[in-house]
Amino acid sequence: MSDDDIVIRPIEEDDGDNGLFDVLAQLTEAPKLPRADFVRLLQQQHKLDIRLTVVAVDRDARVIATGSAIIEQKFIRGGRSCGHIEDIVVDKGARGRHLGIRIIEFLINFCKQRDCYKVILDCADNNIPFYEKCGFSPKERQMVLYL
Amino acid sequence: MSDDDIVIRPIEEDDGDNGLFDVLAQLTEAPKLPRADFVRLLQQQHKLDIRLTVVAVDRDARVIATGSAIIEQKFIRGGRSCGHIEDIVVDKGARGRHLGIRIIEFLINFCKQRDCYKVILDCADNNIPFYEKCGFSPKERQMVLYL
Repeated sequence: MSDDDIVIRPIEEDDGDNGLFDVLAQLTEAPKLPRADFVRLLQQQHKLDIRLTVVAVDRDARVIATGSAIIEQKFIRGGRSCGHIEDIVVDKGARGRHLGIRIIEFLINFCKQRDCYKVILDCADNNIPFYEKCGFSPKERQMVLYL
Repeated sequence: MSDDDIVIRPIEEDDGDNGLFDVLAQLTEAPKLPRADFVRLLQQQHKLDIRLTVVAVDRDARVIATGSAIIEQKFIRGGRSCGHIEDIVVDKGARGRHLGIRIIEFLINFCKQRDCYKVILDCADNNIPFYEKCGFSPKERQMVLYL
């Protein structure tokens, strides 16, 4: 399959039944949500209009990569925003085809359109070279507290 | 002044004129917003209801510390959320009085109430011991792209 057959676009209601959760499960615990719950979450996100999930789909409309960005409007920097990129994952059968970088570029453009002065993300040390190729630089240390 | 005189509470409209921006400027570039702009941003945040800024105020109602959390609702983890803690700063004249940890605890409770399965933040290496005292552990590397 040529990469021209792959479309990168905002998530849609059918994606939950077309492989989204199979791809997300390669990143972390991601049980498939019942369609009604998935659609409800998607509608909530559309209404808030500050979080975008994008997917790469093949010619069979199967999701083969995904990523999200959330826009955080701040009181610093004159009230501008920070974009947070989250949950980037490419299906293991579709790696090496630059889908990750295409997803990241789509999300960076979304952040630019929303007046972000920066975009941040967290990654494992072995993924630093990939994100450097996308234009990012290492900065601080991520800290986590599980509740 | 005793620490009993200090109140930790969600941000209010008058805080913008009572030292909030002086404190934030000790963290990064944070020009004072005109009152109308500040109130508009605050009302937007209240309406979205996914970002909370808290302040510590002294008995003169001056802001002496602040911090924020944003709730990111995900498709992984059964549709649960991740809390992002941002922009923690304590006024240089009020450090060493455990205001940072009180702000963090307030924000962690907010994240718990919003069904977060984890809370994350990014910090400089020299602040890792402070956040470890708050219950956090080092995890990944933060990457940044300035737009």
